[in-house]
Amino acid sequence: MAGKEAPAVTPWEVNGEIDYDGLMERFGTEPITPELLERVRQHTGRLHYMLRRGVFYSHRDLDTVLDHYEGGGRFVLYTGRGPSGPVHLGHLVPWTFTRHLQEAFGSQLIFQFTDDERMLIRDGIDEEAAGHWVLENALDVMALGFDPEKTEFIVNVRHAAKLYPLALKIARDITYSTVRTVFGFGDDPSLGMMFFPTMQAAPCFLASERDGEPVPCLVPAEIEQDTYWRITRDVARKLGYPKPAQVHGRMLPGLTGDAKTSSSQPLTAIYTTDVPELVERKIEEADTGDHPARCPMYQYRNLLLTENDDETHEFYVDCLEGNIDCRECKARLAEAVNRFLGKHQRRRRLIRGSVEKMLE
Amino acid sequence: MAGKEAPAVTPWEVNGEIDYDGLMERFGTEPITPELLERVRQHTGRLHYMLRRGVFYSHRDLDTVLDHYEGGGRFVLYTGRGPSGPVHLGHLVPWTFTRHLQEAFGSQLIFQFTDDERMLIRDGIDEEAAGHWVLENALDVMALGFDPEKTEFIVNVRHAAKLYPLALKIARDITYSTVRTVFGFGDDPSLGMMFFPTMQAAPCFLASERDGEPVPCLVPAEIEQDTYWRITRDVARKLGYPKPAQVHGRMLPGLTGDAKTSSSQPLTAIYTTDVPELVERKIEEADTGDHPARCPMYQYRNLLLTENDDETHEFYVDCLEGNIDCRECKARLAEAVNRFLGKHQRRRRLIRGSVEKMLE
Repeated sequence: MAGKEAPAVTPWEVNGEIDYDGLMERFGTEPITPELLERVRQHTGRLHYMLRRGVFYSHRDLDTVLDHYEGGGRFVLYTGRGPSGPVHLGHLVPWTFTRHLQEAFGSQLIFQFTDDERMLIRDGIDEEAAGHWVLENALDVMALGFDPEKTEFIVNVRHAAKLYPLALKIARDITYSTVRTVFGFGDDPSLGMMFFPTMQAAPCFLASERDGEPVPCLVPAEIEQDTYWRITRDVARKLGYPKPAQVHGRMLPGLTGDAKTSSSQPLTAIYTTDVPELVERKIEEADTGDHPARCPMYQYRNLLLTENDDETHEFYVDCLEGNIDCRECKARLAEAVNRFLGKHQRRRRLIRGSVEKMLE
Repeated sequence: MAGKEAPAVTPWEVNGEIDYDGLMERFGTEPITPELLERVRQHTGRLHYMLRRGVFYSHRDLDTVLDHYEGGGRFVLYTGRGPSGPVHLGHLVPWTFTRHLQEAFGSQLIFQFTDDERMLIRDGIDEEAAGHWVLENALDVMALGFDPEKTEFIVNVRHAAKLYPLALKIARDITYSTVRTVFGFGDDPSLGMMFFPTMQAAPCFLASERDGEPVPCLVPAEIEQDTYWRITRDVARKLGYPKPAQVHGRMLPGLTGDAKTSSSQPLTAIYTTDVPELVERKIEEADTGDHPARCPMYQYRNLLLTENDDETHEFYVDCLEGNIDCRECKARLAEAVNRFLGKHQRRRRLIRGSVEKMLE
């Protein structure tokens, strides 16, 4: 339960436990300024709630991408997932924003499944398991409403031929010492772990390669991955492709007070396939914060579930003023999550056939 | 012109300028013994002239492959080429022997075009050039009479999806320090050059992977590549595939006295597309040895062009006894080469359509 003093800041200016401004400074990325938001608004109409609230708050070259778009060019979106387990609500934050961008700008999305990396790591999964999770995770992606005509899944192992020619060009320009510095590999890394970054970089340049002209690529990404994208940006310069642009988002906190939802600790996360009773139990047992900005209950609403700003704000104020206690707040969040998941799970079932086709 | 003393050895026991026995000792490979030859003969009928003359003289695990074959199992052949230029007669020596093995044992051949490696090296070629040489070189391969039904071309870049899953498994088990030790890379190698060996190793295991049971792979190879195959053999053990077996052959010498025909010095080699006048000029200007065993004129006959042992032997003796001078020997070799190339070039033209289809 939160304290009683009214906050001086609007809820979406509060960062919770992660110092997002510090991260921006550390990685040298740019804030998404009111001016930039206004430029976006001119193309999308009312700003998406994740932009209104600063869920996506930092970027690299988003302005350059808009320049290109305003000049009549297209840009593509690129994101992905390591298919080694079920998807939780935290994953849906950037994907929901990506879907908005696809709809607003008519952009093609390249969604990469890094099954190769999942097989390369120690105690990694095998091809059969990867295949299972690729389909399961792709259902979650498409259930968010991406346009199948404008969405291309690249499953690295089975679609290697799409990426390998580009990965080669990239691999020619990155040296061992560079990846080692950036990724901090152990003493004697495997060839696979060293080569993998080139397969992850390749989709950034796929549209340019296919069109035979520069097509910028915008990657909704976690800011911590900036170093990785910096290599890719260096390579882009050498190869003459547009540098991949990024927008950086905040992360959904774990239910048990961790800064980030974690797949490896099941109780900290709500999976998209959880049954209502499990959702209720997880939320019932969740930790709450001393302030809504530091409380997962509030963050789940603000970052993902509640599109309506007034409703979000109401919860924020009610919590601070003690008009709602944690028990009731949790019960209502569980309801909201189950409403959301009910629809999501229905869509997952309906689209299974068409998603299987997309993956072929 | 050679001296006059009669030799105490049969011509095919003479090594020329390369110490092939020393190589065998250095790499720790096994000689192809009379006993092993007899085992081969039981399956192939009369021994192929390249075995009769010891052109192929060393091996690893050829006996194991025969065990498997005699037990009712199949084995596959694997060889390949970096498609960065035209094929010369030196390339045809191992391929001719490979074709014999395919026919005699009914084996499938996997022929890999390492266009990826050609693009990775410094001053490498681009995709268009690689595509051109892939087709041109494939024509030379198929003109030798390989069975199209039993021959699979793998062009690494366009067929990456066939190899990448296996390359990943291999890449997981090879470390940076291992490839560095074996290949002696420079100070800071590119990721591409480091990963490439796994793509070259992958075809060794492709048949086992497809059949879901051990299918040995036999690689007709130059003995100098043994270190490379040793890594692949180590990986095979770890992954549970049969270790790739090898047969090692002698190399056609260059026309200008070099130990080995070299693509980078055009005058040292006869290309399969050379016109008769060019062949005549190249052979006219070629160096001769002080002994047929050290003379390219003789080696071209013994290693490749003359299947008939008596005819080969006759040239050998005639040279030693001074019954034929270099000018006449050269004129007759030029005739033989042009007869060979005339047929080869005709076949190349006839099969172009079907080879294009094989490469799709």
